[in-house]
Amino acid sequence: MNGADRLCDTLLVNGVDVCFANPGTSEMHFVAALDRKPQMRCVLGLFEGVVTGAADGYARMADKPAATLLHCGPGMANALANMHNARRAWTPMINVVGDHATYHLQHDAPLTSDIESLARPMSHFVRRIESAQDVGPAIEEAYVASLTLPGVTTVILPADCAWNSLEPAELKPATLPALKSIDGATLREVAAGLRKHGKRAAIMLTGLALREQPMEMAARICAATGAQIFAQMSNGRIQRGVGRVAIPKVYYPVDMALAQLKDVDYLVLVGAQVPVGFFAYPGKPGRLVHEGCEVTALARPGDDLPGAIDALADEIGARKSAPAFIAPPRTEIPALPTGKLDADKACAIVSTLLPENCIVADESVSSGRMFYFDCHSAPQHDYIQLTGGAIGEGIPLAIGAAVACPDRKVVAMQADGSGMYTVQGLWTQAREKLDIVTVIFANRTYQILHGEMRAVGVNDFGRNATLMLNLDEPALDWVQMARGMGVEAARATTAEEFADLFKAALKRKGPFLIEAVI
Amino acid sequence: MNGADRLCDTLLVNGVDVCFANPGTSEMHFVAALDRKPQMRCVLGLFEGVVTGAADGYARMADKPAATLLHCGPGMANALANMHNARRAWTPMINVVGDHATYHLQHDAPLTSDIESLARPMSHFVRRIESAQDVGPAIEEAYVASLTLPGVTTVILPADCAWNSLEPAELKPATLPALKSIDGATLREVAAGLRKHGKRAAIMLTGLALREQPMEMAARICAATGAQIFAQMSNGRIQRGVGRVAIPKVYYPVDMALAQLKDVDYLVLVGAQVPVGFFAYPGKPGRLVHEGCEVTALARPGDDLPGAIDALADEIGARKSAPAFIAPPRTEIPALPTGKLDADKACAIVSTLLPENCIVADESVSSGRMFYFDCHSAPQHDYIQLTGGAIGEGIPLAIGAAVACPDRKVVAMQADGSGMYTVQGLWTQAREKLDIVTVIFANRTYQILHGEMRAVGVNDFGRNATLMLNLDEPALDWVQMARGMGVEAARATTAEEFADLFKAALKRKGPFLIEAVI
Repeated sequence: MNGADRLCDTLLVNGVDVCFANPGTSEMHFVAALDRKPQMRCVLGLFEGVVTGAADGYARMADKPAATLLHCGPGMANALANMHNARRAWTPMINVVGDHATYHLQHDAPLTSDIESLARPMSHFVRRIESAQDVGPAIEEAYVASLTLPGVTTVILPADCAWNSLEPAELKPATLPALKSIDGATLREVAAGLRKHGKRAAIMLTGLALREQPMEMAARICAATGAQIFAQMSNGRIQRGVGRVAIPKVYYPVDMALAQLKDVDYLVLVGAQVPVGFFAYPGKPGRLVHEGCEVTALARPGDDLPGAIDALADEIGARKSAPAFIAPPRTEIPALPTGKLDADKACAIVSTLLPENCIVADESVSSGRMFYFDCHSAPQHDYIQLTGGAIGEGIPLAIGAAVACPDRKVVAMQADGSGMYTVQGLWTQAREKLDIVTVIFANRTYQILHGEMRAVGVNDFGRNATLMLNLDEPALDWVQMARGMGVEAARATTAEEFADLFKAALKRKGPFLIEAVI
Repeated sequence: MNGADRLCDTLLVNGVDVCFANPGTSEMHFVAALDRKPQMRCVLGLFEGVVTGAADGYARMADKPAATLLHCGPGMANALANMHNARRAWTPMINVVGDHATYHLQHDAPLTSDIESLARPMSHFVRRIESAQDVGPAIEEAYVASLTLPGVTTVILPADCAWNSLEPAELKPATLPALKSIDGATLREVAAGLRKHGKRAAIMLTGLALREQPMEMAARICAATGAQIFAQMSNGRIQRGVGRVAIPKVYYPVDMALAQLKDVDYLVLVGAQVPVGFFAYPGKPGRLVHEGCEVTALARPGDDLPGAIDALADEIGARKSAPAFIAPPRTEIPALPTGKLDADKACAIVSTLLPENCIVADESVSSGRMFYFDCHSAPQHDYIQLTGGAIGEGIPLAIGAAVACPDRKVVAMQADGSGMYTVQGLWTQAREKLDIVTVIFANRTYQILHGEMRAVGVNDFGRNATLMLNLDEPALDWVQMARGMGVEAARATTAEEFADLFKAALKRKGPFLIEAVI
């Protein structure tokens, strides 16, 4: 056996059995080893942004990392934007980046680059493998780090470390260290703060705290103390829908977010960051809580977030309280909109028809900004979204979710400008016959930037701004592009057409794309 | 005026009047400033790899840098692979990367990342702008560096440095420092070496040495001394065709390259690197010249390469020698092949029909490996190619060349797997009505990797290797994809169909894509 075999075996013994890949020459021994492991599911992406975005979506739903196979520095460079999103979602991921043989690096061959420098900004953990013998320890270390930091790990695999021989060995699953629990002093301080501030307190959650049970427990604390509850602006995954906590996210527009948080004098963070503006705007604050707001971290990423909430509930004596903010059933199913299609109508139709137990992958950007809030009382579903602002995450995210959950429908809400970044992912959806219905919000513009330009004080656009902000001339034909990659597709220009297509797409299995011309 | 205005003015006063762009919120003031400068040509790419690949193609043909506009670390991350290719081509480029306002970075907002760490491996020069007042000096410094290093420069523009005010000023074009000329001792040493080794010597060129005049002068030296002449394996641009020097490139397959260079005992580098294997292979050498070969650098990148060749010709007394290796006219136009299309037939047809003064943008990878050698006696043309091995350069390279040379036909030789990396570029070709005929070599596989797998000793592929190396199931329909992005397209499955389509494409203006099913 060789180092590449050990790499596969180490992944498999730890239950990592999906590898999203785009290989190159320096990974041929890795590919050959994967070929000897039929129990590993290998999924090809035709661009590395698809690969890491899919690994992100997979792990958010599977709660374990996928491996990726990337080719040298430039291949990983293509993967970085979605590694960035995964990093912001605290998604476990094990990227394996092939590099030249150790002794070949000195020659500065054309594909050579400083992989560590590229990897570090988008990885929580970076490690270069030193030898074939080092492969197993490095991969195990990355696996443990991915689940305990938690986050994105990147392991650099020189070609000779993959092809050199080593002795077979019996491998055992890695032991994961216990997560850090919360000390009593912090619990007492937070409990006192919540009691003191009552309804002018808020709890802000992210990560594993946004699953059904810990969120419900947090809502019991809210019921007992009067506190508000929020999710971060962007989160890896939220379990939601009727009967679960109707948790608001922090708004993206700064003024809306400031209004949303203006009454919060005491903010308890559970894995979350202090809410800040996605961007700075002249004359507007960066922090979205007011200056007098006291902020305290109950738990940080990598801590046992559900455990922290449980412990706080105990401290407060809220375990038996009825949870606040539970989403009630819809009193009536709203009538579907009609007439010329627009973004709001498309969102309303999706929200109304959303199937039970589906996964919503949301990169609708400006078109679907209120869609999340419209779905509090929809049938229960998982909501995964763009986290780091690096557009081009939606199509791959849907791929990963569908690979992780083959029996669940994935509804991908996709802005057109963002979708073009990783449009190649549609081919992977077709090849893997993934059960994804993609809604393209075809407004044929970077709509969000029109708003941002106005925020900058520019209302009349000249030729250059128009050229840079609009996607028309020519209009993208998503139906043809999707079909060109093997995905069935159709176009809707009225709400009726859209509703009919969406209903039909829900009834079938496999990928389908609807171009919603809005 | 503000910092963004100064940025545009500094570019324009130095003749940089093309900006390939994909903007985001942090660049809105830059966009607004560009909107006030109609003399700047702004070209939108729907993905940042298109943006920098196009800037690379532009500068290779225009001999001056384009600017790019990139959005934060993740936007630049998407641009890195083609920055890598540009770096390997020594292409002048000025990347302007927007970042958060200086005072907003402390908040670690979602799009925040370590831009410098990401930029450095793919840039020759990285500089963060400190204030609005610093914008002019920083851009001028980058401009000078781009032309004198020469290479890829990256300037980070915090949003507040763009939006803050500053006083108008009268700007002057930057003064470029004189390039380093070659000292007499080196000239005498190289001249002696060439005389001593005669036909067992070789001159290896890249960069500006591969233009018609310096290459011809190098060929005079060859005629006078008996030396061979080579271009690097990959080069930014070669001026070639009938009546020019028929310069061989170093082969990609290691065994072929070793055979090609086995008789070279003395190698003179003019801007070139010592030839090395693109990858390491077990048991094969990394350097492609034999161990006893003496290697000497006449000139390095950034030196005056044409001047070095002139000086060497003077030293040798070769200025009046008739140049060696001049490509003779074709004695007869070969008959066009017929029957079922394959890669060789498609290449032969393109080579035979190649129009005078066109630009060939080559990312044909395995399909066109011998195409270059078949075109020595074709009508005169410029040849630009993938340089750094980061696939996804071809479609953008053609864009940039067509923007730089609107009166010349661009023939893009494009492998299908590589083409998918930046397929979004087809839309820019349509929007800008660029005169490009793209030939897609649709072998529906990463063909190069089949050879590499065999080199690794794997001849029978199982399911996982097949999944990762083949692009079929489903086959990509390039005609639909191209039309979906506004580019007219057609498919050829026979040599006759291909020849007819290629002839028709040459007669019309504007983008056209031929899917050559091989």
